[in-house]
Amino acid sequence: MTTRVVIIGGDAAGATAAARIAAAQRDDLELVVLERTPFTSYSACGIPMLIGGEIPDGPDALVARTPGEHRRRGVDVRTRVEARAIDLDRQQVEAADLETGSTLTFGFDELLIATGGTPIRPPLPGIDLPFVRGVQTLQDGIDLLRLADQGCRRTVIVGGGYIGVEIAEAFANRGCTSILVERAPSVLTLLDHDLATQVVDQLGRCGVDVRLETDLDGLSDGVVHTSGGDVPADLVVMAIGVAPNSSLADAAGIELGAKGAIAVDRRQATTTSGVWAAGDCAESTHLLTDEQVHIALGTVANKAGRTAGLNIAGGDHLTPKVLGTAITRVGPLEVALTGLTHARATEAGFEARDTTIEATTHAGYLPSAEPMTVRLTVEEGSGRVLGAQIVGGRGAAMRIDTVVAAITAGMTATELSELDLAYAPPFSSVWDPIAVAGRQAASARRGE
Amino acid sequence: MTTRVVIIGGDAAGATAAARIAAAQRDDLELVVLERTPFTSYSACGIPMLIGGEIPDGPDALVARTPGEHRRRGVDVRTRVEARAIDLDRQQVEAADLETGSTLTFGFDELLIATGGTPIRPPLPGIDLPFVRGVQTLQDGIDLLRLADQGCRRTVIVGGGYIGVEIAEAFANRGCTSILVERAPSVLTLLDHDLATQVVDQLGRCGVDVRLETDLDGLSDGVVHTSGGDVPADLVVMAIGVAPNSSLADAAGIELGAKGAIAVDRRQATTTSGVWAAGDCAESTHLLTDEQVHIALGTVANKAGRTAGLNIAGGDHLTPKVLGTAITRVGPLEVALTGLTHARATEAGFEARDTTIEATTHAGYLPSAEPMTVRLTVEEGSGRVLGAQIVGGRGAAMRIDTVVAAITAGMTATELSELDLAYAPPFSSVWDPIAVAGRQAASARRGE
Repeated sequence: MTTRVVIIGGDAAGATAAARIAAAQRDDLELVVLERTPFTSYSACGIPMLIGGEIPDGPDALVARTPGEHRRRGVDVRTRVEARAIDLDRQQVEAADLETGSTLTFGFDELLIATGGTPIRPPLPGIDLPFVRGVQTLQDGIDLLRLADQGCRRTVIVGGGYIGVEIAEAFANRGCTSILVERAPSVLTLLDHDLATQVVDQLGRCGVDVRLETDLDGLSDGVVHTSGGDVPADLVVMAIGVAPNSSLADAAGIELGAKGAIAVDRRQATTTSGVWAAGDCAESTHLLTDEQVHIALGTVANKAGRTAGLNIAGGDHLTPKVLGTAITRVGPLEVALTGLTHARATEAGFEARDTTIEATTHAGYLPSAEPMTVRLTVEEGSGRVLGAQIVGGRGAAMRIDTVVAAITAGMTATELSELDLAYAPPFSSVWDPIAVAGRQAASARRGE
Repeated sequence: MTTRVVIIGGDAAGATAAARIAAAQRDDLELVVLERTPFTSYSACGIPMLIGGEIPDGPDALVARTPGEHRRRGVDVRTRVEARAIDLDRQQVEAADLETGSTLTFGFDELLIATGGTPIRPPLPGIDLPFVRGVQTLQDGIDLLRLADQGCRRTVIVGGGYIGVEIAEAFANRGCTSILVERAPSVLTLLDHDLATQVVDQLGRCGVDVRLETDLDGLSDGVVHTSGGDVPADLVVMAIGVAPNSSLADAAGIELGAKGAIAVDRRQATTTSGVWAAGDCAESTHLLTDEQVHIALGTVANKAGRTAGLNIAGGDHLTPKVLGTAITRVGPLEVALTGLTHARATEAGFEARDTTIEATTHAGYLPSAEPMTVRLTVEEGSGRVLGAQIVGGRGAAMRIDTVVAAITAGMTATELSELDLAYAPPFSSVWDPIAVAGRQAASARRGE
């Protein structure tokens, strides 16, 4: 008997799942992937660099695997096909062929919902005007690039998260007026305020006009109305966050969870038998709090898609729990964080203590060395590392991965400080900044 | 009652120990440090960069803490004082004042031997000729710099370990003829041969004339006699390895261990009561094999010195076990390793399997992305990660620290692959090369 598998969405989670199912080479599985855009398996994270002119080969370079390549690997991808409804009783997906306008029906025994997320648009006057854009799909990136090439010079970016900051810098790098409007007193509000301030300063040096504590009140043709006054604009990019595309699931009666994302277990199974979900549309489980969270990151989506694919193909895999590790670069300044900040640790019921150290990216006597700050958040009592934030020059931020491994292993600050980390003058100091932070956190805990 | 502490050696291990003892602010401890050179607490690892002209502030920049700074922190440092004998019965060190030639005697209740190491000089004709040098102390670095400035243009470096490779590149960067003579079929023999070959090729591109499988037969004025013929030279740098300076301890009857290094436990105590040892003169304990090893690295020396200092001041600390993590850069090529290669794992009795992956340092669509190779060595059966080797472009090598944390925590290849590692296009790929290597290693183990 043949098992019919339908996957809605052909980007990070959906395409990864499809590739795993195809790799299982099970003749009894029939697989179809419905993708509403013309693209599959692309790097949405590369869009800011595309706009900034850093990718000489253009948008195509962001595509890791085209629909044709997927098909040659045995995955039946239907692009420009948009799922419109899930009928659980009939076990079928109703979809629209966006090219012909015709309605299509796909029966399934197993359904994977990998519909991704959408930039949030608050219900404000003018929010649907054509000069208001988001950055989520590759098509969004291509559209922005085209508009910029056609002469959009005055850009307003609303929201100072990772995407907003990267897009604001990209437009500044193109020589556009780039105004970043953020409601909070800082950008990158996942970071502690004092560290995020370094990013605000760097954005200024990159030519971005950052307007903090400024609300978006509405939009009209060519004008952005803010609490700080009207701003003329050719283009507005909404980047205040990503909402899970879960309305299709919701309408079908599939259970939602954290922040409206589709509720899933670590097998990526929803609470509806035969229905799976993965990627920006679904929940994840946090490694430290064990809470269900909504974290819209490509790394998480790829891991979850892999799990879903392996399980649909008959496996029994669990998606690893997440720490929400994130990294970005603003001009020469690198920023990374993982796990819990003090504020989030406190919220989650941990008694935590922060330790902050100033160091250099490598041996200070080399002219290439640059300042870097490491903040560790450590649990009182146990001494376990709960989180880290790093801001600094070139080479600073990827050290976050050492802390990721340490947190995942449940290491204490002392254990972190004792790691036999690499050292040579062009790379580090004889006590790596991560080890110094660990040692000082351990000392602080002992009251030294 | 006052406890008299004598430390022989004022660099990495000795000075770190002294600083810890001084920080304990115990009035009952009387501390003196004997250092035969004029320098304390310097970065010997920076000497190649000094010679290569990368340190604009010159040799002084390599000194982290001068004798005067140590004294201001309460450490009585006697520079240009060389310990000549340890008398355990009388509990005293006999020393020579190298300035005056007079003999000095220092009584001790606790003695820390931190005499470091010395570049090995095989007993060959001409090995003691004045144009034959080593690189160990800052004075060695200053001497080499002076000789190069005075017109030594033809340099021969004997030995292709980390120091040899770095020094050979440094002389080439100065525009000198730089010939590297190595007995083995490759340089950096701690690495697997195929990976080390990338370093040989890179050395060639840096202008170093690498002569492999070539023996040093002897030296005479201005000529290096090798198995591949005579080579004219103004300067010869011996870099075939570092031997522990343990003869003083040996003569006093203190027990030696691995490779002639002073035998110590993880408290840095020798088998002689009241005598401690740390740094390049002493053993370490390997984290994976639990064997006593001799690893002459600044990171290890600093950690061991810290332990010795804390324990002499009344603490009860253990030096972390070591993995032998090492990192270097040759031109734009980065190299790192940690733990056990397949060969070393097999020697140590592990049944191991290697997995090698080719990746890029970050998103391949950015022009700055460069190739990198990761090789993981994993234990059969348990799947535990035993070691890693990385060779690649900028940003590749510091990933070794993620593996260091994973090995220390006893993670399997699967666990390594599941880490929530950082991703943004300028830093990595959505599956970091370390995670890809972990995943492939796990699949290989399952026979997929």
